[in-house]
Amino acid sequence: MKKILIVGAHGTLGQAISQALSHHQLIKAGSRRGEALVDLTDGDSIRALFERIGKVDAIISATGKLHFGPLAEMSADQFRVGLKDKLMGQVELALIGQHYLNAGGSITLTSGIVSEQPIRFGSNASAVNSALEGFVRGAAAELDGGRRINVVSPNVLQESWEQYRDFFPGFEAVPAARAALAYVRSVEGVQTGQTLRVW
Amino acid sequence: MKKILIVGAHGTLGQAISQALSHHQLIKAGSRRGEALVDLTDGDSIRALFERIGKVDAIISATGKLHFGPLAEMSADQFRVGLKDKLMGQVELALIGQHYLNAGGSITLTSGIVSEQPIRFGSNASAVNSALEGFVRGAAAELDGGRRINVVSPNVLQESWEQYRDFFPGFEAVPAARAALAYVRSVEGVQTGQTLRVW
Repeated sequence: MKKILIVGAHGTLGQAISQALSHHQLIKAGSRRGEALVDLTDGDSIRALFERIGKVDAIISATGKLHFGPLAEMSADQFRVGLKDKLMGQVELALIGQHYLNAGGSITLTSGIVSEQPIRFGSNASAVNSALEGFVRGAAAELDGGRRINVVSPNVLQESWEQYRDFFPGFEAVPAARAALAYVRSVEGVQTGQTLRVW
Repeated sequence: MKKILIVGAHGTLGQAISQALSHHQLIKAGSRRGEALVDLTDGDSIRALFERIGKVDAIISATGKLHFGPLAEMSADQFRVGLKDKLMGQVELALIGQHYLNAGGSITLTSGIVSEQPIRFGSNASAVNSALEGFVRGAAAELDGGRRINVVSPNVLQESWEQYRDFFPGFEAVPAARAALAYVRSVEGVQTGQTLRVW
């Protein structure tokens, strides 16, 4: 039984992850609900969360906002939305969380298929998701004590398909329960520095 | 003969790129020297540059700062150094530059081998360089009028080898003149959305 922090636990993906890892002790966190509130864009909020819950065996993030919009109209400020939220939110969770992670523990972040398979209006998503994949490659090389870090790159979720289908022609949506398996693999397996694709 | 803006034209790599493209009309820009001064971390500075030089056939960036340091001591502010400078500097050059790029023109950015091959103290570099590679994948899909965008991922340069060798054990340094060929390929070739590896 591992003590696992799940940030974004009440989203579509987070709920499926929680279900798949329900044999562990879960601390379900979110920005608006959950037993633990945390704002990943605020380092003090992340530190306060870990000070309260103490050391954990696994840290999972399944959250983060991106900017979607036409490249021709995109401003730097719009582009920074994804950098600040989905990228730095998860990076800072890892930077702070590494100091609250027991030996042998793991960090699992979330990117998305758009890192490798571009979509219309998706240049911010491609950049941010790729950055997360690069970050875990780099960070994995420096974690010690058997600590690991991976990122899961899910396809569009079936649960969100109606909302996003126009932007993902020919993409094969996956059930959140299937995407959740990759988080189990990251938490209970041996991989590190990997992008676990669910597509 | 193309009209080509080269930002970072006076660095080691920039000089080699300028040499390799010397049969074109070059506008050599930099933050401290060059016929055109520009601060890529300042959108107004980028806009002022393009207003002054007008439309171009190619935009090349061979510049950008990263943060190198141990993951265990890395702060979010340190991590943001690379996001603000090498990532957003080049992204904003592309976001603004697309509106000053003639049909059939190209944008060429610079990442680096650490996006795929991690090194000690390199997690920020892995993230930033990967983000740039993701960005061009996404942006290429939306540029029209035959406009293209690529990123060159050079290995360590032979010219910088003495300075960096301790961080790159077993890496095969490449001459800047060889890395420069990839920029010629991006400017004069047909590829788009590609990471042109020089390693």
